[in-house]
Amino acid sequence: MSPQDLPAWKTLTRLAATSIQTPLETLTEVEHRFDAMSCEAAGLLVDLSKQRLDSEIVGALLSLAAQRELRGRIDALFAGEHVNTTEDRPALHTALRAPEPEQPVPAAGEVTPALTRLLDFAEAVRSTAWRGASGRAITDVVHIGIGGSHLGPDLVVNALGSRGRAPRIHFVANVDGAALTAVLPGLDPETTLFVVVSKSFSTLETRVNADTARRWFLERVCDAAAIRRHFVAVTSNAEAAAEFGMPAENLFPIWDWVGGRFSLWSAVGLPIALALGQLGFQELLAGAHAMDTHFHHAPLAANAPVLLALAGIWNYDFLGVSNHAVLPYDERLALLPDYLQQLEMESNGKSVQLDGSPVGVHTMAILWGNVGTNGQHAFHQLLHQGTRGFTADFILVGRPGHRLEEHHRWLLANGLSQSQAMLRGQDTEDPHRRVPGGHATTTVVLPELTPYTLGALLALYEHKVFCQGVIWNINSFDQWGVELGKKLAVPIYEQLGGKPALGQDASTRGLIARLRALSQTS
Amino acid sequence: MSPQDLPAWKTLTRLAATSIQTPLETLTEVEHRFDAMSCEAAGLLVDLSKQRLDSEIVGALLSLAAQRELRGRIDALFAGEHVNTTEDRPALHTALRAPEPEQPVPAAGEVTPALTRLLDFAEAVRSTAWRGASGRAITDVVHIGIGGSHLGPDLVVNALGSRGRAPRIHFVANVDGAALTAVLPGLDPETTLFVVVSKSFSTLETRVNADTARRWFLERVCDAAAIRRHFVAVTSNAEAAAEFGMPAENLFPIWDWVGGRFSLWSAVGLPIALALGQLGFQELLAGAHAMDTHFHHAPLAANAPVLLALAGIWNYDFLGVSNHAVLPYDERLALLPDYLQQLEMESNGKSVQLDGSPVGVHTMAILWGNVGTNGQHAFHQLLHQGTRGFTADFILVGRPGHRLEEHHRWLLANGLSQSQAMLRGQDTEDPHRRVPGGHATTTVVLPELTPYTLGALLALYEHKVFCQGVIWNINSFDQWGVELGKKLAVPIYEQLGGKPALGQDASTRGLIARLRALSQTS
Repeated sequence: MSPQDLPAWKTLTRLAATSIQTPLETLTEVEHRFDAMSCEAAGLLVDLSKQRLDSEIVGALLSLAAQRELRGRIDALFAGEHVNTTEDRPALHTALRAPEPEQPVPAAGEVTPALTRLLDFAEAVRSTAWRGASGRAITDVVHIGIGGSHLGPDLVVNALGSRGRAPRIHFVANVDGAALTAVLPGLDPETTLFVVVSKSFSTLETRVNADTARRWFLERVCDAAAIRRHFVAVTSNAEAAAEFGMPAENLFPIWDWVGGRFSLWSAVGLPIALALGQLGFQELLAGAHAMDTHFHHAPLAANAPVLLALAGIWNYDFLGVSNHAVLPYDERLALLPDYLQQLEMESNGKSVQLDGSPVGVHTMAILWGNVGTNGQHAFHQLLHQGTRGFTADFILVGRPGHRLEEHHRWLLANGLSQSQAMLRGQDTEDPHRRVPGGHATTTVVLPELTPYTLGALLALYEHKVFCQGVIWNINSFDQWGVELGKKLAVPIYEQLGGKPALGQDASTRGLIARLRALSQTS
Repeated sequence: MSPQDLPAWKTLTRLAATSIQTPLETLTEVEHRFDAMSCEAAGLLVDLSKQRLDSEIVGALLSLAAQRELRGRIDALFAGEHVNTTEDRPALHTALRAPEPEQPVPAAGEVTPALTRLLDFAEAVRSTAWRGASGRAITDVVHIGIGGSHLGPDLVVNALGSRGRAPRIHFVANVDGAALTAVLPGLDPETTLFVVVSKSFSTLETRVNADTARRWFLERVCDAAAIRRHFVAVTSNAEAAAEFGMPAENLFPIWDWVGGRFSLWSAVGLPIALALGQLGFQELLAGAHAMDTHFHHAPLAANAPVLLALAGIWNYDFLGVSNHAVLPYDERLALLPDYLQQLEMESNGKSVQLDGSPVGVHTMAILWGNVGTNGQHAFHQLLHQGTRGFTADFILVGRPGHRLEEHHRWLLANGLSQSQAMLRGQDTEDPHRRVPGGHATTTVVLPELTPYTLGALLALYEHKVFCQGVIWNINSFDQWGVELGKKLAVPIYEQLGGKPALGQDASTRGLIARLRALSQTS
């Protein structure tokens, strides 16, 4: 059933028409507004008190959730039902962080041993028990993977740095040779470990980068047998990895019930384990698991991922917001917008329901953002005085990871003042200085930035995404939209190499001709 | 006069209603489409052949430009008229890259000597003629600046790397202490040069970071007289810089007729000169100047910045597009989306006309993006199958800066195939695999990535922004919207430090209480 056919949808449409007449700021004048409109989960505070919500609207949104049987769908997610309908699979990333694999995981017996092997390997590299072929310790790790095999590990390693003795971690995702050539010249092949991450071992970018890395390595080490000490893979294609030169013991499993964008908790997170050690990785899992427990068991009316999801639905589908900014006020979370961009846009950038019929309403908005305070000196001008609607999530971290107190207090003061300016605006005589305000935002507060709180934060957003997918009745776990471009790239690749440009539109034909001419005048 | 009161606006509204009925792909079946809809400027190709444009629409857009007297406004820009009306100043960034300061620059006599001094200083650091107080050569430069004092230099240094003997360049923008503390521990104060960039020398983030850097330096070097060999500034506030410990000869000027987001061509670009040397910096200026010359003199119908601007107006104001993706298919241009986000959103995120009356139509859209091919494995799913309209600029570079030919051919093939998929879409039996297509995109081709072509590219976008501001009749050169947040931050800063949270809304009050409680439990 299309979302707009649900009774609560009609109620919400009516409420929106009235709500929009009320200045947003008046809502925040209500006594106990903050307590009523914020909730706690796994140590995180999720504050919705600057959203255009009141108890009647929240009630109607919860009715919408009930009419979609959200509670049952959450149970189905955790129970391992095939919620990924188009690929007929469960989505069991939560099983990867459960202390006991109580869940009906298809390969339940594999999860704990796989984690143990992963952490043992990471510790072996860190302790230098694992060494390169010439006996030297590993100093550098090059992680080759793209999309879901890249963004999560890069975010976490960048946010949390390293603990104890850890190799330097380099990420290579792009097929652009500039990515790999920016990393390789600084490395000593004898002390470098390459981690190749691709479920199929056939992702174009990863395969091309891995092949070049292998060639670079062999040109210097001149011993194919050394590959087994310098290349490991996270893949489910053991055959292709063997052909590449990696024996079975160098492979870490990834299962088809873990989607790429939900996979940093699996062996895809190897760089995290290398940087933080096994305790750090386990803290990350524990934080995510705490959020899982909250999500699974808290009443929907006090359920942080559910409320975050419903606020988004309200903004996108009833208040006409078409883009959502993620504004982490913490330099260490600089990659969070990129990570959430994939998580949310790839999961819920769909327009057909589970049964293939058109969804009929707007699904996920454009998600973008950048780190505060930098954004204040860049794009906030448009947010305050432009003509575009938007919503934003502010991410604040209570206690800093350094001793520069004045810096941190200014950082937080700026985060709060920006959401306040978006709420209040400012009326002035001079129209050039007028700020309309009235923009709804959410603030998430982490007590500090640790593996635990970061794990909880990422799981919060994972579950928000799931809930929105349920409301929209779409499959958040597939990504068929990426296939067409891959298919079209193959003939263009050949034509850039010299084949006649047949079957192309006039524009693409012109561009191919131009690029061929350029490549010949180098 | 409001844009929609211009006769051409009505014509375009009518044309849009008809145009939207035509499948976009049919336009690209027209013979000579590519030649008719692409143009050259300063060695760059700007291809609009995948835009929803035909000769009638382009004609109407050019009429709109004529009705706004765009030609005269371009002349006024170059002539140094006070196009920044609310601040009663010219906007003369083009004068910074003119070989002869033929323009009526307010401080014409200062431009060339200032550039010479800047380049001489950069060469002195590079050649080690300039040394630290203890006689050691400079190995590291920490550039402290935010917004327009950060994004341009960071983009260019990141894109072009360094030439010859150059110090390592580190950028610190955010007031978050995590930014500065990520850089300082790796540095030797005796071989480090700090560049403090703030027109007023009072930008909060920059002042707080500079003060901490100075303290860090003095705690290690213990000689206030050494500051003059380790701190230089780009500022127009000599007094504040002197108080900080910098003599006049350490200061490089920045003038009020150069806006922050247009300032990388000035002394703000010092890190670029340090990285590339004086020849590299001059090539950058020459590329931008070549684009200036094209923009100033080419007929509007063959004027790349003008056509790019008009395509944007068409998309935003007549076809209802509310966001624009910038997709550089080159790893080296990874910071281009951030740079353009500021340039375009800060310049044209306005809603009142020059006379203060409401503009009445949509101005700049949300500009976002990320590097290809990474985005294909992240957010392209939504672009292909979501419910949101968008436009995109693909930036391709013909010849790579490395020898990995296969990588580069796949990179380009992917860029072309993505714009083709957005154009064509795909009809299938399975609704989950259907891709609607019909999304208009622009492709910009650089023959290779050099200081010259990058200078031309950035000037292309600067002028596009100016033209759109003219059509919308807004002031692209002010940014009043950033003031309110700064003002509101001051009491919140004090209240986070312990003062009673008076005058705050209930939401902000609750957040202040939470953050104070957290800071006391550390």
